[in-house]
Amino acid sequence: MADSLPHPQAGDPVFDLHVGGKMETRSTVALTGPEDLSLAYTPGVARVCEAIAEDPAMSRHYTWVPNTVAIVTDGTAVLGLGDIGPSAAMPVMEGKSVLFKQFGGVDAIPLCLDTTDTEEIIETVVRLAPSFGGINLEDISAPRCFEIEDRLKERLDIPVFHDDQHGTAVVALAALTNALRLTGREAGSTRVVVSGAGAAGVAVTRILLEAGVTDLAVLDRRGVLHSGRSDLTPVKQALARDTADHTGRTGTLADVMSGADVYIGVSGGTVPEEIVASMADDAIVFGLANPHPEVHPEVAHRHARVVATGRSDFPNQINNVLAFPGIFRGAFDVHATAITEGMKLAAAEALAALVGGDLREDLVIPSPFDERVGPAVAGAVAAAARADGVARA
Amino acid sequence: MADSLPHPQAGDPVFDLHVGGKMETRSTVALTGPEDLSLAYTPGVARVCEAIAEDPAMSRHYTWVPNTVAIVTDGTAVLGLGDIGPSAAMPVMEGKSVLFKQFGGVDAIPLCLDTTDTEEIIETVVRLAPSFGGINLEDISAPRCFEIEDRLKERLDIPVFHDDQHGTAVVALAALTNALRLTGREAGSTRVVVSGAGAAGVAVTRILLEAGVTDLAVLDRRGVLHSGRSDLTPVKQALARDTADHTGRTGTLADVMSGADVYIGVSGGTVPEEIVASMADDAIVFGLANPHPEVHPEVAHRHARVVATGRSDFPNQINNVLAFPGIFRGAFDVHATAITEGMKLAAAEALAALVGGDLREDLVIPSPFDERVGPAVAGAVAAAARADGVARA
Repeated sequence: MADSLPHPQAGDPVFDLHVGGKMETRSTVALTGPEDLSLAYTPGVARVCEAIAEDPAMSRHYTWVPNTVAIVTDGTAVLGLGDIGPSAAMPVMEGKSVLFKQFGGVDAIPLCLDTTDTEEIIETVVRLAPSFGGINLEDISAPRCFEIEDRLKERLDIPVFHDDQHGTAVVALAALTNALRLTGREAGSTRVVVSGAGAAGVAVTRILLEAGVTDLAVLDRRGVLHSGRSDLTPVKQALARDTADHTGRTGTLADVMSGADVYIGVSGGTVPEEIVASMADDAIVFGLANPHPEVHPEVAHRHARVVATGRSDFPNQINNVLAFPGIFRGAFDVHATAITEGMKLAAAEALAALVGGDLREDLVIPSPFDERVGPAVAGAVAAAARADGVARA
Repeated sequence: MADSLPHPQAGDPVFDLHVGGKMETRSTVALTGPEDLSLAYTPGVARVCEAIAEDPAMSRHYTWVPNTVAIVTDGTAVLGLGDIGPSAAMPVMEGKSVLFKQFGGVDAIPLCLDTTDTEEIIETVVRLAPSFGGINLEDISAPRCFEIEDRLKERLDIPVFHDDQHGTAVVALAALTNALRLTGREAGSTRVVVSGAGAAGVAVTRILLEAGVTDLAVLDRRGVLHSGRSDLTPVKQALARDTADHTGRTGTLADVMSGADVYIGVSGGTVPEEIVASMADDAIVFGLANPHPEVHPEVAHRHARVVATGRSDFPNQINNVLAFPGIFRGAFDVHATAITEGMKLAAAEALAALVGGDLREDLVIPSPFDERVGPAVAGAVAAAARADGVARA
């Protein structure tokens, strides 16, 4: 077997850990003799098949489907590495699968597709859907990721969730909720700058709008998105209409950062220190690019009161793992047909609430290893699914 | 979670066992704190992705892919139930997955597709291929199963194996090898009747031809396949040319059974006792339909010396589980690019040899629970892969 072989990078702890991969399948039933075989396989299994053929809802009871999510990628936007292809994306997807299980009890299957065509990805996932209780889209580049998610949501009656968008958005909103509380701000009167209009930037902006933020400027590489620009994709046009068009803000990052209360970086690159220094008092700075935050925490702390990054080696780690395992756990617990905006907001609220009385500048978001996280998020998401009418149980 | 719920068929042992499904995913690495996360996930994992992007062969060392098979079905020919659709097929595929792991140490993912279109199935599997070390096609109805397997073998450089064909063929050949030995026959001078020209019948016939049987008559519902018939599909035409056309045999089952040495039923239905009685002395009767053998063992024993079925409650169970786990284990152990005819023949020989000196009328094939089976088949298959030049390790 693979893991008994010597390997090319032996002695390197990262590669040593990856030998043979990071996951396996396991039987949950005992097969010790012919009697077991006749229950779990032929002839007994035929009766279970017939029961499902008669009433498809029976598959929720008698298969692993309702607890199983497909992690689907085309390998075009993997970590900060970009378009590395499906095979090279697999270690990230296996890692994701391990996190799904550990933090949500969800069985997750990594599927790295050998196509980057929007229609082909959609068709492939639709054909695979009978085998899964949900679809987690992962590391698919913008703007294809938006259309793929939207159209799959229309066609499937199981949760479809693009984690790069919504996982990031949920955790960022949770951290921001606490940061606003700590600095005595209200969402409706806070000036927010979102730097980056890719998958994460779009979703962070959308969830902030839903959470009541009204003064929002979103930037891509060419500056603030507003309807006066002629170079915007449809997704960015819609974003411009819902953000800077209301406030009349245009221009560069420097223009909108002056006096801003909150900076959320989901773009990469580096923000010059003088721009950070131009923000309002008690500023909030989230530099979420990995491994190099847009504003290094050392720099940020000279000018801001609350600082968060995506890194595990600084306080306030805004990491999707705080969201996706609990969100799918909650959705699966009630056999939800979708993940609604209400379920995402509920996840963010539950995450924020876990910090409770411990709230301080370097603790606006719980640790991924806080064991309360998965159950709290799952419970809130399941309740929201019921409230939103998408629960089947 | 599903398995904490009451379920509709509580108290029925088969359904009780199926609650929550029969399998799960599991991490093979520990994640107990941020340090583990930084090795198994970001930032460490990025280096593994880069190594694979640079040299795709690295995925054989550092992912679960080389040990993972996709069990692909469209649910059109499930057990004896027929076209019950992808969702209802899942319990069988989960069972198969459990058997793959238990008897071969292979991680197997059940994928039940929501399409029965040949082109769509092929395209879907091709797109999924980067995630798997092999493809096990399952319960796809004939004749589509032949084209799907052939074309996938052309397009992919990983093993593609339609178990309903080749698993059955390998085990039937193993049992027949021992039955011929026991009755003092040689393959080249034995008259064989194969009843059924679907997936299993075609593959059983092909492997018997490769094993040196020359006097073969294959029957579909209308009688013996021969080139004088105008109603044959291309697959059946080819079979006719390679079998009855050489011997000139035509007619009905009764016609060819008279004086035949071996009957292999892979068709369902029942053979009248007077037809069984017309076979040669020391006849060999394999009635493989499940759960109702074409010749009930009680009837068969009145006229034949060696009797085998597909059932676990009679001696000489011809069950695919004797073949597919070891075949994929062996193929995976040497990172084979295909499963060749030589590998299948080697698997059959290894299976037959395990009976050794214990050979007797009611023991021509080992038990699925004989622990020597998986390793013996795997070893023979790996050696044959090397001999056939399809091994990459």
